[in-house]
Amino acid sequence: MSEKRAPLGIGVVGCGYWGPNLIRNFHQLRGSRVVQLADLDEKRLNHMEELYPEVQTTTDYEQLVQNDEIDAVVVATPVDRHAEVGLAALQAGKHVLVEKPMTRTSEEARRLIDEAKKRDRVLMVGHVFEFTESVRKCKSILDDGTLGDLYYINSQRLNLGLFRNDVNVIWDLAPHDFSILLNLLGGKRPRGVRAIGASHINPQVEDVATMTLDFDGGLVAFVQVSWLDPKKVRQTVLVGSKKMLIYNDIEPTEKLWLYDRSVEGPAEYETYAQFPYTYRYGDITVPRIGGAEPLRTEAQHFLDCINSGKTPLTDGHSGLRVVEVLESTDRSLSEGGARIELPA
Amino acid sequence: MSEKRAPLGIGVVGCGYWGPNLIRNFHQLRGSRVVQLADLDEKRLNHMEELYPEVQTTTDYEQLVQNDEIDAVVVATPVDRHAEVGLAALQAGKHVLVEKPMTRTSEEARRLIDEAKKRDRVLMVGHVFEFTESVRKCKSILDDGTLGDLYYINSQRLNLGLFRNDVNVIWDLAPHDFSILLNLLGGKRPRGVRAIGASHINPQVEDVATMTLDFDGGLVAFVQVSWLDPKKVRQTVLVGSKKMLIYNDIEPTEKLWLYDRSVEGPAEYETYAQFPYTYRYGDITVPRIGGAEPLRTEAQHFLDCINSGKTPLTDGHSGLRVVEVLESTDRSLSEGGARIELPA
Amino acid sequence: MSEKRAPLGIGVVGCGYWGPNLIRNFHQLRGSRVVQLADLDEKRLNHMEELYPEVQTTTDYEQLVQNDEIDAVVVATPVDRHAEVGLAALQAGKHVLVEKPMTRTSEEARRLIDEAKKRDRVLMVGHVFEFTESVRKCKSILDDGTLGDLYYINSQRLNLGLFRNDVNVIWDLAPHDFSILLNLLGGKRPRGVRAIGASHINPQVEDVATMTLDFDGGLVAFVQVSWLDPKKVRQTVLVGSKKMLIYNDIEPTEKLWLYDRSVEGPAEYETYAQFPYTYRYGDITVPRIGGAEPLRTEAQHFLDCINSGKTPLTDGHSGLRVVEVLESTDRSLSEGGARIELPA
Amino acid sequence: MSEKRAPLGIGVVGCGYWGPNLIRNFHQLRGSRVVQLADLDEKRLNHMEELYPEVQTTTDYEQLVQNDEIDAVVVATPVDRHAEVGLAALQAGKHVLVEKPMTRTSEEARRLIDEAKKRDRVLMVGHVFEFTESVRKCKSILDDGTLGDLYYINSQRLNLGLFRNDVNVIWDLAPHDFSILLNLLGGKRPRGVRAIGASHINPQVEDVATMTLDFDGGLVAFVQVSWLDPKKVRQTVLVGSKKMLIYNDIEPTEKLWLYDRSVEGPAEYETYAQFPYTYRYGDITVPRIGGAEPLRTEAQHFLDCINSGKTPLTDGHSGLRVVEVLESTDRSLSEGGARIELPA
Repeated sequence: MSEKRAPLGIGVVGCGYWGPNLIRNFHQLRGSRVVQLADLDEKRLNHMEELYPEVQTTTDYEQLVQNDEIDAVVVATPVDRHAEVGLAALQAGKHVLVEKPMTRTSEEARRLIDEAKKRDRVLMVGHVFEFTESVRKCKSILDDGTLGDLYYINSQRLNLGLFRNDVNVIWDLAPHDFSILLNLLGGKRPRGVRAIGASHINPQVEDVATMTLDFDGGLVAFVQVSWLDPKKVRQTVLVGSKKMLIYNDIEPTEKLWLYDRSVEGPAEYETYAQFPYTYRYGDITVPRIGGAEPLRTEAQHFLDCINSGKTPLTDGHSGLRVVEVLESTDRSLSEGGARIELPA
Repeated sequence: MSEKRAPLGIGVVGCGYWGPNLIRNFHQLRGSRVVQLADLDEKRLNHMEELYPEVQTTTDYEQLVQNDEIDAVVVATPVDRHAEVGLAALQAGKHVLVEKPMTRTSEEARRLIDEAKKRDRVLMVGHVFEFTESVRKCKSILDDGTLGDLYYINSQRLNLGLFRNDVNVIWDLAPHDFSILLNLLGGKRPRGVRAIGASHINPQVEDVATMTLDFDGGLVAFVQVSWLDPKKVRQTVLVGSKKMLIYNDIEPTEKLWLYDRSVEGPAEYETYAQFPYTYRYGDITVPRIGGAEPLRTEAQHFLDCINSGKTPLTDGHSGLRVVEVLESTDRSLSEGGARIELPA
Repeated sequence: MSEKRAPLGIGVVGCGYWGPNLIRNFHQLRGSRVVQLADLDEKRLNHMEELYPEVQTTTDYEQLVQNDEIDAVVVATPVDRHAEVGLAALQAGKHVLVEKPMTRTSEEARRLIDEAKKRDRVLMVGHVFEFTESVRKCKSILDDGTLGDLYYINSQRLNLGLFRNDVNVIWDLAPHDFSILLNLLGGKRPRGVRAIGASHINPQVEDVATMTLDFDGGLVAFVQVSWLDPKKVRQTVLVGSKKMLIYNDIEPTEKLWLYDRSVEGPAEYETYAQFPYTYRYGDITVPRIGGAEPLRTEAQHFLDCINSGKTPLTDGHSGLRVVEVLESTDRSLSEGGARIELPA
Repeated sequence: MSEKRAPLGIGVVGCGYWGPNLIRNFHQLRGSRVVQLADLDEKRLNHMEELYPEVQTTTDYEQLVQNDEIDAVVVATPVDRHAEVGLAALQAGKHVLVEKPMTRTSEEARRLIDEAKKRDRVLMVGHVFEFTESVRKCKSILDDGTLGDLYYINSQRLNLGLFRNDVNVIWDLAPHDFSILLNLLGGKRPRGVRAIGASHINPQVEDVATMTLDFDGGLVAFVQVSWLDPKKVRQTVLVGSKKMLIYNDIEPTEKLWLYDRSVEGPAEYETYAQFPYTYRYGDITVPRIGGAEPLRTEAQHFLDCINSGKTPLTDGHSGLRVVEVLESTDRSLSEGGARIELPA
């Protein structure tokens, strides 16, 4: 990254829950300058003006999108507006970082991808967990074959609160699990998706759900999400033929636990009539994970991609894959948990 | 319990994994005397003879069943033999304690129930978790309305090892979850059962599975079992409208966590368009749980029922209900996770 | 707090480890405005200028102290300069918030107290833990008699790293324990102090130490501090005759554990020859603790005291008491762990 | 161990808290046969007779000591009787396993050592923790230099309950810590011992205490024991120049945590005026520890030593070293925490 380059001008649309974190990071990075913020709520804008007196604000995102000082637009609105705002920004020639989930439909996601391609702009999705050192370390452990063949993945994201009315708990929490999963699997897509949910607080919005994703080669992923659990859980367990890995994101520093454990069955030609299983219980290793703020890494990556022209780690296709899985959960929910095949 | 009564004579069929624990407990209780043990494996019998020199042994369970000194037979064989041995014992006029799961089919379970009724013998199923102080305390918390309306239950029983060839992981581990669940719900049966499993070690035997049980009134129970998880988990979470309860059986003493937490949605006539949810975060209470060995409590309960003629807490009908759910998981597995309705 | 009042002008001397946190908080509070920062290191000042473009900076703290726009000076230098800078600020008519430990000697602390009294300025010490909701809750539990008579207190603050050369581990970490202790005990001072330490990395600076404080009435407090422990520990255990309380500051939310446990000995006239002890094991309660940032509460309290003229919770006398205990540990260390009596 | 050898005859004196565990183990081992039990309390003897109908009992230990069928005597009485009973057994030509602490005074311990030497009998002390796989693994980690130079050891054994009137909390709990420590250090004895205690329940018996042991070469060991702590703690932390090790005996399986962490100070000729410390934070390793019952290992070791004539791991000298440290704590307590030098 050249030191001489002028900082990129950033506009942020949406100053609700997540927007302020993005603003803070782009404000602190040397390669960017936050130029303008948009939100429908003037109170939020006023609060932002107090924190960042030098930044312009507007309640009209179209004005922001046309701002000549702005090189890149960050879309942190509710998901229903992602496509509209993202498209407007791309059409105005801006690079776009859109929060997760990327869009409400895969069709919208494809439209953004096409527009970005046509305009030759960077389109990146804010799958922030893919920028954590924990997920990167998981991926390197997977990629170097440490776990052997993957048997199954068990992911839980449970929480009390942060209810939303615009989306159900799957659309709210599972994008994290899905983006982590698909990242770890190198972009491999599930073949089928099943989802079962239940609504207790708002009868129109599922607040707890369990999902099963099946992949080629027998790999299964179980994903459970809830807004109603007493204890916060954010955990992904990866069970392989050679070793097993727990990624517990609640732990402040000891997030990854690599278990040198496995089970071996009898040789395949045997009858399974006896008990010839071998259990291997070895050491546990807790690798050192650095503490960089992932959102800062994500923001820096966005700037780097703009400057260098390289494809983001979490590009539009990555966002689309997550949206496709989310869409499938909607269909499965409405079909009583039936397995939905993903388009090839 | 009268002190003068002669100790009841006990015969135990099956001296494998669980049998020795039963033998030890009936040996130590004052109200019983272990008279005879049966097993097909003479080595096991020899080992038992060393520990209990005064006890008779046989490789032929029918001989045990006819032993006049024996009042009650404990069936701790593999599940496939439960019905046969239990029936023979009942027909010989013995009381019967049969290990869980009660039988391989609900038809077998019904046959045992009928025979016990006809002979007026005690028939009890070894759902040992129902005799823990933890489950009893859970039940009293539920029964006094502390949790409000139950929203959902989330149960996990994960483990590395103890692979079996005669049954899959559901039949091996989920009887615990099902018996706990049905006990807590006061015998309420699920309306529908869904099960999805996968086999990684032995292609004919599922080693990981996730299940969903739905009940009248919107209650859902998620149950997950695995023989392949790196970390032992035995946990049941009960989420109610007023409070939430975690029963973590791995903790040595602090097993129950009662969370004074809840979420309230907007009044029903509102549009849900806004965010009017109320979260209540209160104290956590960890009730004191005594440390009695549940198997001893179970064994004592069996003796008490024989002496008093009262119906066991875990009688044949309780065993049957668990077997019915297990049967339904088999059907659901074979129908690709379809929802199986239980017979009314 | 009047809304119309102009924000108080704040100057901060020292932009090292802790200073930036203070700056951030006074920047965000509505009742204050950060006017000027002083540090000997220009790089740090440059970094602060980037974050707060509107703030003046200087390498000469005397200039800051004379700045007419400044009402109050925050002293966040190394402890050796606390007295000098604090005194200069008070003499210039400024209110003073000085970091902990207040000064290097009790004589210096008394000089600050006298000067503040003479000038009628607020003098407050940054004992930040006294502003946590956890310590406040502990204090209310103690004050309402829940624990009964206090038997002993066991405090540990263990850590890897943050070695310093200007002070030993006691002066670095134990001010937290001492200020918490003395706060909880309502300002009660220890009668005697013993300290044993050892130096492993820098032979002139103790990096691990254990201390015993004895109070009137038989209460004992054990305090252990280390820069060399593999696992971070920040825990205070309060054992009373009726209940026991653990304050574990490492836990993100469940910081306080109130144990309904106690031991009762035999009546006093008995011979103690037998075993007539009674153990009571009851429930554990984990009270809900809010998550307010204590430094913000502290900063707000400082502003409130300036505006209202009331005496700070952590006033100069509170700072002095902590310094007296620290001085005693120095003497005890140099006398091989001898008990040092505190001046009455 | 020869299979043909007749089992050794074992007599156990003392059937209180710990005795029954020893009886059970010697009963189960093939190399031994429990011949006779002695206790002053007939109720205890009756209970033992129920569990082990083939075993003789007596209220007169001298009768047991003279029993010809007995080869070895296990002394599990209160510590005040250890010397008397042990001596009588040795004089009767029996091998002796005496519980910890070995005796009430070092003089008594020496008398036992002398008698055993004179009679050429095995004298072993029941330092059971030295037979755990955890302590053995700790020792092998220390011995192979993994930790580098040992800086300090921090040991805590905290508990609620099990109050005793015959000994204080140091004599009750610290023998474990001292035997572990001295084992890990290969028999190295401390040079000085300091102890500070307090009595809250029984004014004549300390129920909480903190001790400091100093060794040649700058190593320090802190040991804290309590009968009054709400939460059970059994932990030993070993801090070395290269790595650090936590031995947490409360954890059911993950007892040892090896931290690849260290601090390096500036080179010695520097002035320490700056901050040139280097912190190294690496992985954590949790070695696999097997689950053998240590008391069984201890009992087997006793039998092996009798059969082979080899010196026990925990011989009389090992018991004496622990008693010497205990005696020093008594002196230090009575001298207000003064450092007591151990005899060379």
